[in-house]
Amino acid sequence: MLWFAGRLHEGHTVPFDLSDRGLLLADGLFETMPCVDGHAIWADRHLARMADGAAVLGIPFDAALAAQALSALVSTDTAPGALRLTLTRGPAPRGLRLPVNPAPTLFATRAPWRADGLFQPVRLATSRIRRNSTSPTARLKTLAYLDGVMALAQAQGAGADDALMLNEAGRVACTSAGNLFVIVDGELITPPLSEGVLAGITRALLLELAARAGLVPVERPLLLADLHAARRVYTTNSLRFLTPINAVDGVPLASSLSAADEQALRALVVPPGLRAFIAA
Amino acid sequence: MLWFAGRLHEGHTVPFDLSDRGLLLADGLFETMPCVDGHAIWADRHLARMADGAAVLGIPFDAALAAQALSALVSTDTAPGALRLTLTRGPAPRGLRLPVNPAPTLFATRAPWRADGLFQPVRLATSRIRRNSTSPTARLKTLAYLDGVMALAQAQGAGADDALMLNEAGRVACTSAGNLFVIVDGELITPPLSEGVLAGITRALLLELAARAGLVPVERPLLLADLHAARRVYTTNSLRFLTPINAVDGVPLASSLSAADEQALRALVVPPGLRAFIAA
Repeated sequence: MLWFAGRLHEGHTVPFDLSDRGLLLADGLFETMPCVDGHAIWADRHLARMADGAAVLGIPFDAALAAQALSALVSTDTAPGALRLTLTRGPAPRGLRLPVNPAPTLFATRAPWRADGLFQPVRLATSRIRRNSTSPTARLKTLAYLDGVMALAQAQGAGADDALMLNEAGRVACTSAGNLFVIVDGELITPPLSEGVLAGITRALLLELAARAGLVPVERPLLLADLHAARRVYTTNSLRFLTPINAVDGVPLASSLSAADEQALRALVVPPGLRAFIAA
Repeated sequence: MLWFAGRLHEGHTVPFDLSDRGLLLADGLFETMPCVDGHAIWADRHLARMADGAAVLGIPFDAALAAQALSALVSTDTAPGALRLTLTRGPAPRGLRLPVNPAPTLFATRAPWRADGLFQPVRLATSRIRRNSTSPTARLKTLAYLDGVMALAQAQGAGADDALMLNEAGRVACTSAGNLFVIVDGELITPPLSEGVLAGITRALLLELAARAGLVPVERPLLLADLHAARRVYTTNSLRFLTPINAVDGVPLASSLSAADEQALRALVVPPGLRAFIAA
């Protein structure tokens, strides 16, 4: 299901201007989030993040129209869905130079959200592709996602489930599409945004709510050794919430967190409306 | 003018599947080249580079079909044109994971090629955005071009014409969409591909033909100081050929190359068919 040019469409094929800079130059942004029971999860935070990114890139963004797109898609079904909102700088003459009067493109899609494999531990393989903390694509959720695509493909090709991405300094940054957290003693630690990581919505939520699970939230650079020394390592994102990591490059990671403590962390980030769809 | 789905279209708007990974994830490649008098300049080299990139990314590429697209566009007019060929991994279900049976999208466009400002010296401003030599997007001409877009916009916002991009080690890499060359004594020096630069077609041509202009071609890492110490600094690309650089961050660069020597370099890279359209 697609929302495009002000209305819903079955399928994803519509008349589209192929001079769109989103398609030609990755000149745009996106957001993904679950929805259930007529409600897009943390839509306000996703719209605020897109507005922040659009301001950095200088792309006009109509947050009210974007909210309308999400509402229209949410209303089509009460079952869990995975929403994606995409904003581009729109069609323009050839070349990199910014158009003087951009006519941005906004569209959104809805696919089924699936609980399969949720919370199942994953194995990471360290990618040769590093995050570039100087790039606007590191902190913002831009369309320039090819590094993540290739890092994931290479990790899966090597028999792992996902990629561990380091930054240019060789410190731990993130997975192909998720932030990283480690629990060391009573601290819940994640790399600061300056390490070249996305300002994740679930990341922010965990930092805000960690105290409720008895943990002290900390933003601090992490080394590979910190993953091996941790009580537990997680990756987070908006559609899968909290995923434990049980190995890096074939070396198992410890898990000395109690089931109750892990449950307490999940409770912080899993939207109530989705709990009924998740096997215990 | 657009070539899409096997035929020419006026304008750029056609039925298009918005689940295309080129649009959603910058999962694809492109090439740009001039054409004139029924001939796409260095089309064989551009098609070979796209084939190389497609092999790295694992995107099926039909070079014969791409050649057909270029031919169709070239045939529409004998006047100089700027061609762009775009290949994406095509439509796919949501997520980063590669589709098992990709159905790649191939399209091409033609715009007027303009000689305005050709060979006019440009001023560079050093970008805060660094090239990432570990990324497949550094050496390949992928759709993930947002770093170049933003680097150019920031340079122009600061009153310069283009951005000077350094790599993660702080060495000189390229401009927003061109390779860099310096002439020092009798050497024509450009950074090796391992410095995080695109494998430019004009770059390769200059290295192959430098001896004809009495210069020794060299691939060697360059520092900012090398630009200031050079007899002449150039940026190269397929549509603008050879552009002198006369300042970096407001500091003028020397030019101790004779007009005849500069002319000899131009002669190496400007396609004969276009010479009649370029003011002396």
